[in-house]
Amino acid sequence: MTVQQRLQAALETPRFGTAIMSVIIFNAVLLGLETSKTAMDVAGGLILMLDRLCLAIFVLELAAKLVAYRLRFFRDGWNIFDFVIVGVSLVPAAQGFSALRALRILRVLRLVSAAPRLRRVVEGFITALPGMASVFFLMALIFYIGSVIATKLFASSFPDWFGTLGLSAYSLFQIMTLESWSMGIVRPVMEVYPLAWMFFIPFIIVTTFAVVNLLVGLIVNSMQDAHHEEADAETGAYRDDVTARLLVIEGQLAQLLEQQKKP
Amino acid sequence: MTVQQRLQAALETPRFGTAIMSVIIFNAVLLGLETSKTAMDVAGGLILMLDRLCLAIFVLELAAKLVAYRLRFFRDGWNIFDFVIVGVSLVPAAQGFSALRALRILRVLRLVSAAPRLRRVVEGFITALPGMASVFFLMALIFYIGSVIATKLFASSFPDWFGTLGLSAYSLFQIMTLESWSMGIVRPVMEVYPLAWMFFIPFIIVTTFAVVNLLVGLIVNSMQDAHHEEADAETGAYRDDVTARLLVIEGQLAQLLEQQKKP
Amino acid sequence: MTVQQRLQAALETPRFGTAIMSVIIFNAVLLGLETSKTAMDVAGGLILMLDRLCLAIFVLELAAKLVAYRLRFFRDGWNIFDFVIVGVSLVPAAQGFSALRALRILRVLRLVSAAPRLRRVVEGFITALPGMASVFFLMALIFYIGSVIATKLFASSFPDWFGTLGLSAYSLFQIMTLESWSMGIVRPVMEVYPLAWMFFIPFIIVTTFAVVNLLVGLIVNSMQDAHHEEADAETGAYRDDVTARLLVIEGQLAQLLEQQKKP
Amino acid sequence: MTVQQRLQAALETPRFGTAIMSVIIFNAVLLGLETSKTAMDVAGGLILMLDRLCLAIFVLELAAKLVAYRLRFFRDGWNIFDFVIVGVSLVPAAQGFSALRALRILRVLRLVSAAPRLRRVVEGFITALPGMASVFFLMALIFYIGSVIATKLFASSFPDWFGTLGLSAYSLFQIMTLESWSMGIVRPVMEVYPLAWMFFIPFIIVTTFAVVNLLVGLIVNSMQDAHHEEADAETGAYRDDVTARLLVIEGQLAQLLEQQKKP
Repeated sequence: MTVQQRLQAALETPRFGTAIMSVIIFNAVLLGLETSKTAMDVAGGLILMLDRLCLAIFVLELAAKLVAYRLRFFRDGWNIFDFVIVGVSLVPAAQGFSALRALRILRVLRLVSAAPRLRRVVEGFITALPGMASVFFLMALIFYIGSVIATKLFASSFPDWFGTLGLSAYSLFQIMTLESWSMGIVRPVMEVYPLAWMFFIPFIIVTTFAVVNLLVGLIVNSMQDAHHEEADAETGAYRDDVTARLLVIEGQLAQLLEQQKKP
Repeated sequence: MTVQQRLQAALETPRFGTAIMSVIIFNAVLLGLETSKTAMDVAGGLILMLDRLCLAIFVLELAAKLVAYRLRFFRDGWNIFDFVIVGVSLVPAAQGFSALRALRILRVLRLVSAAPRLRRVVEGFITALPGMASVFFLMALIFYIGSVIATKLFASSFPDWFGTLGLSAYSLFQIMTLESWSMGIVRPVMEVYPLAWMFFIPFIIVTTFAVVNLLVGLIVNSMQDAHHEEADAETGAYRDDVTARLLVIEGQLAQLLEQQKKP
Repeated sequence: MTVQQRLQAALETPRFGTAIMSVIIFNAVLLGLETSKTAMDVAGGLILMLDRLCLAIFVLELAAKLVAYRLRFFRDGWNIFDFVIVGVSLVPAAQGFSALRALRILRVLRLVSAAPRLRRVVEGFITALPGMASVFFLMALIFYIGSVIATKLFASSFPDWFGTLGLSAYSLFQIMTLESWSMGIVRPVMEVYPLAWMFFIPFIIVTTFAVVNLLVGLIVNSMQDAHHEEADAETGAYRDDVTARLLVIEGQLAQLLEQQKKP
Repeated sequence: MTVQQRLQAALETPRFGTAIMSVIIFNAVLLGLETSKTAMDVAGGLILMLDRLCLAIFVLELAAKLVAYRLRFFRDGWNIFDFVIVGVSLVPAAQGFSALRALRILRVLRLVSAAPRLRRVVEGFITALPGMASVFFLMALIFYIGSVIATKLFASSFPDWFGTLGLSAYSLFQIMTLESWSMGIVRPVMEVYPLAWMFFIPFIIVTTFAVVNLLVGLIVNSMQDAHHEEADAETGAYRDDVTARLLVIEGQLAQLLEQQKKP
């Protein structure tokens, strides 16, 4: 057994997986404590040091995996996911962007790649996405058209809400979620453009329908698949059995008929 | 081959479809750029000229189709859809209504008629509508009755919200979407008419139920149909096979019985 | 044929049904016009007179039905529905309660009892209700318990929202619809009682789940029933056929075996 | 029959169940009356006395059950439920915490354990929960990560909304329910951090999807199970029958074939 094979075997032991998961959970708690002033005042140095230690462990783990699997490492989407998340944590340590620093908590998402049941939920969801691609595309189209219309019509009077395509898209997203759409946005707009409801109400109806369609579609698809696969397998097995038995019976009967003719 | 037939053949080549779709997407980007002040300051003339060019291409395309298919052109709903959308873009160029100008972006919707997968999503939705006609009609009835009652009861004290049938219908639509229904509308109304909740709460319950019914109904119908059609076809084929085989077996057995009786 | 039988036959002709439905629709338009000041200023007397005429027609229709069917009239729920709705319109004419006058528009609901397709939608919904009775009862229980707790805890500091059981129930209904629950109600309450979220957040979670349960339950039940009944009937017929055929085959074989033994 | 057995028999009579349920309902009305000032002014002493009487009956009932079933009493989850609820009512009587006093109304929940149909609804829901455990866990993970990010980024400028992990979690829950998320929270935040939408909009999309997933998953699971169990049992019985009959037919045919060969 080469060193590489031994490394692979070591990385695939359940004990190694459990150890990494413990480090992830411990790191999650540390990152939570970092948000507490009291905790940072009392033990800030220790917390930051332990956080760096966890990061070091993750880096070592990924390095070991890279050594063990070489380029095969990047064939698994989850490995790329881990690689990017740990990579993001390394960048800000050098540069100190506060927003990127906040992203370090994304490391906790490694729990998903480490726990098979959570992986399956996320994978089930991701595999259902392509089937919904056309609905997604239609939604994007509706948002683009809506944003252009809203910007053209309302930008001059309501620059805060509809001043640019981006602002319009944000406001339309808010309207799609139905948050303060009437009292907050459409009633004020209607005081200037009394017919504005002719744009907003169809927009609400169409997008609400599309969103519900997307959500229910994704869910029912992924659930039905899981349930039906089992039931369909059973039904298929039964049907094959019946067909096979009927073939045997037909064969037997054909034999009988032939024998009767002979004598 | 006549000129008309050649034209038809040319219009039906995949290359022609791709070309038109590229023009649609290019036009969509142009119409988006028109909303940006910077872009219009830098290259406003070019953008408007290119936009007119795209429109000219669409007009030519439709003219070619009209020549090629004559009145059969209008038998396909999607052709009428394209015709109306391009037509709308031609009118405002002459008159300059700002609202109609904004509708030119609807040309982007031609993407739906040009992409078969998007067409199918929209067609699936439209074919599911008639089955929901009675629920739609019930909703319209509830809104009409609700608007009349709200106008009669609250018009004098709250003319902004319930002054006319139209204003009441708009306010009831807002209440149906649950936006600020209580803090914004019903609590103020209840300060004048303490029993107003006896109208609004049943209205909310009934319309919420009807809307959810409509949405879920439309979605589940269209999804089940797609799924079941396949499964039902398979089941039907299997059942026909079993029935046919059983008939053959019965026939063979009857033959056997007859042969046995003979000797 | 007695007078009663002739009356029944006349009432059951399609032409009579169409005539009544036209009167209902005409009356609906009249009641809508009554809310318009302009229409009332121009032709108020005519509108009110025509409205009374419509009411008179409805009263005559019900009287004729009562004569034709006697007490059997009250066996059909839809007849009772018509009777109550027309009755309500007669009362306020004498007393002049403005709220009751507004209820005259409910006469438009007679469209539902007059149109078979709408009747079926409403009937389908009503027959699905009993199956959901226990969820309804649980909801009522949660609201009662929630109202008592909210009143006991918050009545002293927030008498407008939680002063009595009734006010609490209304506020909790608003919170259940998620309208301004946090910014409008719970954040202000939490300024006085910092732990108030421990009551409101579980309440929101439980009621949201129960409401979605109710809605989806009602819809899926009524849809599945319609779809499955057909499919189940087909499956049942096929299975009976297979079982019958197999019985015949077994019988034939038993006969064959017996015949073979004889000689 | 020992005393213990007689006690068990008495406790299991339907009349005893009805009596206890009447006491629960009577107690519910009393606890409702306690929130009414008028009722307390007129008959406060009587109401409180009757309430204590109801509690005494519950304590006696539980004591009798404990004597009758001994430790087996604690094997049934519903018994533990009753035990805790009655226990909670006994504590505050001594200490007088107003919040705990309000919890006495939870005794009304004993209706659920006393009515078999309500028990089944709750049991159906509870048995569906484990299947959703991974989605729950993902939700908790998203909330934890979201709270840490929001606290790190926005705590300094918006201490009321995102000052601590707890405050952030509450605000994110509010945002997840879509209540005032834009006008109330995200627009003000975006005035300080213009890119805040890059955090909040994905958060809304992911959590909305997860919540709908959870709700629909729980409901469809519990409904399908109930419906499918029946249908599957029927299908299973039919299939077993067909397979058995086909086996018999094959056997008979084999016998026939053998007999034919013999002579």
